[in-house]
Amino acid sequence: MLMRQLFDQQSHTYTYLLADQQQAVLIDPVRDKLADYLQLLHELALELVMALDTHTHADHITALGALRDQTGCRTGFGQQSGSACASFTFTDQQALTFGTQQLIALHTPGHTDDSYCFYWAGDAQHTGRLFTGDTLLIRGTGRTDFQAGDAKQQWLSLQRLLQLPGATQVLPGHDYRGWTRSTLAEEQAHNPRLQVADATAYAALMSQLKLSNPKLMDIAVPANRACGQQ
Amino acid sequence: MLMRQLFDQQSHTYTYLLADQQQAVLIDPVRDKLADYLQLLHELALELVMALDTHTHADHITALGALRDQTGCRTGFGQQSGSACASFTFTDQQALTFGTQQLIALHTPGHTDDSYCFYWAGDAQHTGRLFTGDTLLIRGTGRTDFQAGDAKQQWLSLQRLLQLPGATQVLPGHDYRGWTRSTLAEEQAHNPRLQVADATAYAALMSQLKLSNPKLMDIAVPANRACGQQ
Repeated sequence: MLMRQLFDQQSHTYTYLLADQQQAVLIDPVRDKLADYLQLLHELALELVMALDTHTHADHITALGALRDQTGCRTGFGQQSGSACASFTFTDQQALTFGTQQLIALHTPGHTDDSYCFYWAGDAQHTGRLFTGDTLLIRGTGRTDFQAGDAKQQWLSLQRLLQLPGATQVLPGHDYRGWTRSTLAEEQAHNPRLQVADATAYAALMSQLKLSNPKLMDIAVPANRACGQQ
Repeated sequence: MLMRQLFDQQSHTYTYLLADQQQAVLIDPVRDKLADYLQLLHELALELVMALDTHTHADHITALGALRDQTGCRTGFGQQSGSACASFTFTDQQALTFGTQQLIALHTPGHTDDSYCFYWAGDAQHTGRLFTGDTLLIRGTGRTDFQAGDAKQQWLSLQRLLQLPGATQVLPGHDYRGWTRSTLAEEQAHNPRLQVADATAYAALMSQLKLSNPKLMDIAVPANRACGQQ
C-alpha cells in the first residue's frame, strides 16, 4: 500500500496518489501537474484505475479528463455535480475499489453541494485516512458562499466526519501555510471553526468572512464541469 | 510517535516535527515560521527538546536561536559547522534521543562540508525514515558548488545512504515541484543523479549545472552561523 501527497504551489492544492497491488487512484489531480503524475505512475509501475475529484473546484483546473485520455483510467465525480463527461458518478456510502482496498465516498455538502470526502479505513498497521477536500481543512473549513454552498449543511457534514475515530488522519484538499496533515481529534480540539455551539452559530461565523472570489473561478468552474477539457 | 512535514513556500524548505512520549524534535526549522511551530507544539502538548539543522543553510534563516529563546530547547549543528552559538554539536554516528526514540546523525558531506542526514530506524509498525537535508533530494541532489561543497564527497555520501534498507522513506530538505517523499529504492532506480557510473562521472555532471547563487545566500549564511539571530 502506498500513499503520496503532492502539492500544487499555484493553487495550494494537495493531490493524493494511493495504490495497492499496483492499482492506483488519484484524488484531486491538477491539470498543470499532469506530466508529474504520469512520471510517478510510470516510475512506480502503477496502473491508474481511477481519478476522482472531491467536488467541482473553483481554484484550479482538474486533470481528470487529461488523465483519462492518457491512461484510460475511469474518472469519477459526485452524483450532485451533474457531470456529463465523467466515466461514472458516485453517491453517499459508495465503495470505490483499487487493489484489495476501498475508499468510501461520504457526501459532505456545504462548501459546494457536490462535496465529498473519501474515507480509507485503517488496519492493524495504519490508522484510517480521510481525504477531506475543502470540507475540513487544517484549522479551517472551506468557504460556503458560492456553488450552492451552505454553511448549515457544512456544519452537519463536519459533525458527521467527527463521528469517525479521532486518530483518523485528516488529509485536506488545500493548505495555505504548509501544514500537510492533522487528525480528527486534533481538529476537534483546535480548529476554531469547530468550537462554535451549533449550525446557527457556525453559519453566522461563515457569513462574516467576506472573501473575494478565487482568481480562476470564472475559468475553472466551467472547465471542470467539462472534466478540465474546455 | 508522531511525524509532521511542514513546508515553507518562500524557500521550498521542508521542516520536520518528530515526537515520542511528548518530547519533540524539529529538523530544519525556518525563522519565518516560528509562530506556526510554537502553535503546533502547544496544541499537541509537546515539549521541544531539540532543534537541529542538517547543515548551514544558504536559502533561508534558521529558527534554531529563536526556538531556544522561546522554548528552552537545545539546538544542534554538525561539528563541522564551527557553530559557536549552538547548544551542542553532533558528529557522525551520534545518537540524538527524544522520548524512547533516537535519530542517528550521519555525516554526509558534499552539498556543504557540514551536511548531515538523520536516520530514524523503523520498527514493526514503521519503515525507517531518513531526513536527507540537501544531500539527497527527490529525483535530485543538492548542489555542490559553494560552502566547501564537493561533488566527489557527495557521491560517496550518497553511496553510503544507499546502504540503508531500500524501503527507507526519503524525507528531503526541499522540493521544488511539490513532491513530499520518496524511498531509497525509488531514488536508486529513478534519480538521474544516481544513474552515473562513479564519483568522477558524478562530479562531471555536477560541474555542468552552472546554477546562480541562492537569492538570500549573502544574508542567510552569516545569519545561520549566528543561529538565525544576526
